Amino acid sequence: MKLNSETIISAEAGKQDIVVKKVLDAPRELVFKAYTDLELYTKWYGPREATITIDKFEPVNGGVWRYIYHNQRGNEYTFYGVYHKVVKDEIIINTFEFEGPGSFVTLQTTIFEELPNNKTSLTAKSLFESVELRDSEVKYGMNGITDTYERLEEVLKNLKK
Amino acid sequence: MKLNSETIISAEAGKQDIVVKKVLDAPRELVFKAYTDLELYTKWYGPREATITIDKFEPVNGGVWRYIYHNQRGNEYTFYGVYHKVVKDEIIINTFEFEGPGSFVTLQTTIFEELPNNKTSLTAKSLFESVELRDSEVKYGMNGITDTYERLEEVLKNLKK
Repeated sequence: MKLNSETIISAEAGKQDIVVKKVLDAPRELVFKAYTDLELYTKWYGPREATITIDKFEPVNGGVWRYIYHNQRGNEYTFYGVYHKVVKDEIIINTFEFEGPGSFVTLQTTIFEELPNNKTSLTAKSLFESVELRDSEVKYGMNGITDTYERLEEVLKNLKK
Repeated sequence: MKLNSETIISAEAGKQDIVVKKVLDAPRELVFKAYTDLELYTKWYGPREATITIDKFEPVNGGVWRYIYHNQRGNEYTFYGVYHKVVKDEIIINTFEFEGPGSFVTLQTTIFEELPNNKTSLTAKSLFESVELRDSEVKYGMNGITDTYERLEEVLKNLKK
């Protein structure tokens, strides 16, 4: 499938964050809806090989969330966090953690900006507790990131049809 | 007043966090209680010159918090966030943000560790969205930090009497 835009991932040496930028060919309201509408969200969030069960999904200030990924080998992985801030069509700030031993929390900020011609600039920052944890994510987690934003793009394309 | 221990503040160049360490002459259960008991909390949290009004205080997984500081010049400052994780006597992870223009979120992790002789090692990490914001806090916010941990120490001393 031909995609409209590449997913740009920045991880500056020595910093504790990863910044993902993507331009989406959909209006900002629709992109924000893809993050806050339960039915839409399950269609794109996570890597391609996983299906997702939503246990809690409260995308409002002070809300909580909890998801279970099921991969094709029958394994389950649970993630959870809280929504610090949700401003309609503008910004979502939430915590993110794997539920299990050796886990660590990250702080995620997603910014939605209007572009001309009904396009949207998406900026997603993840903030890590240390440079080491950030570097490890850069090394092992990037396939999941590109997968998830490609799936978002596909869902938005189908919505516009 | 003679204090038992100094407050050690670390902010490594180029990093996005501040780490505060303090050894307290009180058992871990009591230190944790000072963070999660509403009445105790209002006795020490914040700089000396401020009084504090608590609007929301839910120190549990997924809970929210919101405080208003009143300083001696009659100004009010509101802060709020969510509790990502609260494990009794062990750890508290929460978000923190000033309510107003130009604000930014930080992620705070407080770790309580038992030491011999009923002492407790407290480690409080604050994670910032950028090195610049972290550096600004180091430059302007340190008096508030030393104040608040000295007040905690005093409250714990009085509790032990």
